[in-house]
Amino acid sequence: MTVWTAETHQEVTVSFRTSGVLYHDQSPYQTVDVVETVPYGRMLLLEGAVMTTDKDEFVYHEMISHVPMLAHPNPKRVLVIGGGDGGAVRELLKHPEVESIVLCEIDGMVIDACKQYFPAIAGQLGHPKVTVNVGDGVAYMETARDFDVILIDSTDPIGPGEGLFTEAFYRNAFRALAEDGILVAQTESPFLDAHVLRTMSGIFHRVFPIVKTYTGSIPTYPSGYWTWTFCSKQHSPKLSPESETRAKAIEQTCQYYNRDVHHASFALPNFVRELTAPTPEPVA
Amino acid sequence: MTVWTAETHQEVTVSFRTSGVLYHDQSPYQTVDVVETVPYGRMLLLEGAVMTTDKDEFVYHEMISHVPMLAHPNPKRVLVIGGGDGGAVRELLKHPEVESIVLCEIDGMVIDACKQYFPAIAGQLGHPKVTVNVGDGVAYMETARDFDVILIDSTDPIGPGEGLFTEAFYRNAFRALAEDGILVAQTESPFLDAHVLRTMSGIFHRVFPIVKTYTGSIPTYPSGYWTWTFCSKQHSPKLSPESETRAKAIEQTCQYYNRDVHHASFALPNFVRELTAPTPEPVA
Repeated sequence: MTVWTAETHQEVTVSFRTSGVLYHDQSPYQTVDVVETVPYGRMLLLEGAVMTTDKDEFVYHEMISHVPMLAHPNPKRVLVIGGGDGGAVRELLKHPEVESIVLCEIDGMVIDACKQYFPAIAGQLGHPKVTVNVGDGVAYMETARDFDVILIDSTDPIGPGEGLFTEAFYRNAFRALAEDGILVAQTESPFLDAHVLRTMSGIFHRVFPIVKTYTGSIPTYPSGYWTWTFCSKQHSPKLSPESETRAKAIEQTCQYYNRDVHHASFALPNFVRELTAPTPEPVA
Repeated sequence: MTVWTAETHQEVTVSFRTSGVLYHDQSPYQTVDVVETVPYGRMLLLEGAVMTTDKDEFVYHEMISHVPMLAHPNPKRVLVIGGGDGGAVRELLKHPEVESIVLCEIDGMVIDACKQYFPAIAGQLGHPKVTVNVGDGVAYMETARDFDVILIDSTDPIGPGEGLFTEAFYRNAFRALAEDGILVAQTESPFLDAHVLRTMSGIFHRVFPIVKTYTGSIPTYPSGYWTWTFCSKQHSPKLSPESETRAKAIEQTCQYYNRDVHHASFALPNFVRELTAPTPEPVA
């Protein structure tokens, strides 16, 4: 018998040859699965969608973390919404400036499964600088304040992640940032989820003065081509001379991120430029 | 019944929902299929591997063509090995400097199927500047001379494309280039075919003085992340001020390529830098 773990999205199915199912359970929010795949090692799926794998997790976690952390001159207080696998936290802790990280993940089962099956990803969730808050990120954001960097490390815009794709949420996130704060959100695939990227870009442009989409290649995500959007009150994503020095140290620890990739990831193909352009305000 | 067109590569299967099979035949070299997929429109498969689709062909054809054409100051004579779908030829003809293009495709059935089913891709194969040579690219290269730009628009390194992945072939290609000529070859996925990229990089560094790998995102190719390698006798891939002006006109016609993407595509993630570094010579 040959076992395959398959995800279907927008009439495309990607299947990974699988040697074992390690974990399967149902939380109040979603199904949580961990399987051992042949091509990508261990894989976490939430509600049947691939979230991370041992062999390609470095792309997503390095790119969501180091781009905003190095664009900010002195990121001390960081908030992660979602991200229960702990990969972003692991990368954030590489920055010596960080004093505290709050992780707000709605689903405790995700955290527990990742601690057990992905020690190389989730292993820093117990670090003394990290506070893990199992709860609703939408509610948390209403009263959050003074964060230097916020990462929206969400699932897709259906199910428990849905509230993380609304204008109301990003207006609260704007207030939760310090006066020179930076937010980065994962914003899906420009090939298969162009409508999501277009809608979210419209929201970001209405809320933040500086909005720049950047891209990376994640082979286990639909289409293999992914976007994050950098939303900022003051700082551009360009590395300053001081940040260059910090980035030089960070890139030594990375498999994907480096200073060239940092800047190049903001060079958008024409069709992505069009999807992420500011949307004209609707006529009143 | 739901029909899916599926390609399996390195223990990953990608399946596209399919509404019809338009063409299926066996040439002396490979099976040739054209199907109508729901997510990506019409799709060409050779020996079961996806070659091109109506909806994402622009990435591959723009990136293999415009990068070397704009790095060269005056590309008049161009050779394409493979590329029977005609997509590269269509892009090359956008450059007014071009005086002649030779397309050397081994499989006439590919050309005929593409002319019939992909008119938007193959429609320029009858252009007066184009000579279509149905024959073996390896043999053609032995006596070819004085080309300004050569594109190796090949299938994977198995079957009829195998001879296009050898050092002997690239030594002939070096001789077939004018003294300031540029060659670009497709060099597979750094995630799923890292061994091919590593081997080919070693070959290129032994044959050409300037070797630079660049990347792009092609959702219907394995892993979605693709490489081409730029091999040159004199010119770097960087756009000169004169080329900037030409590129500005070309990018108006493109869905993916623009001047920012041209330069950014050479910024390699750490793991791709490692794969494409010059290989030390074996000890004698």
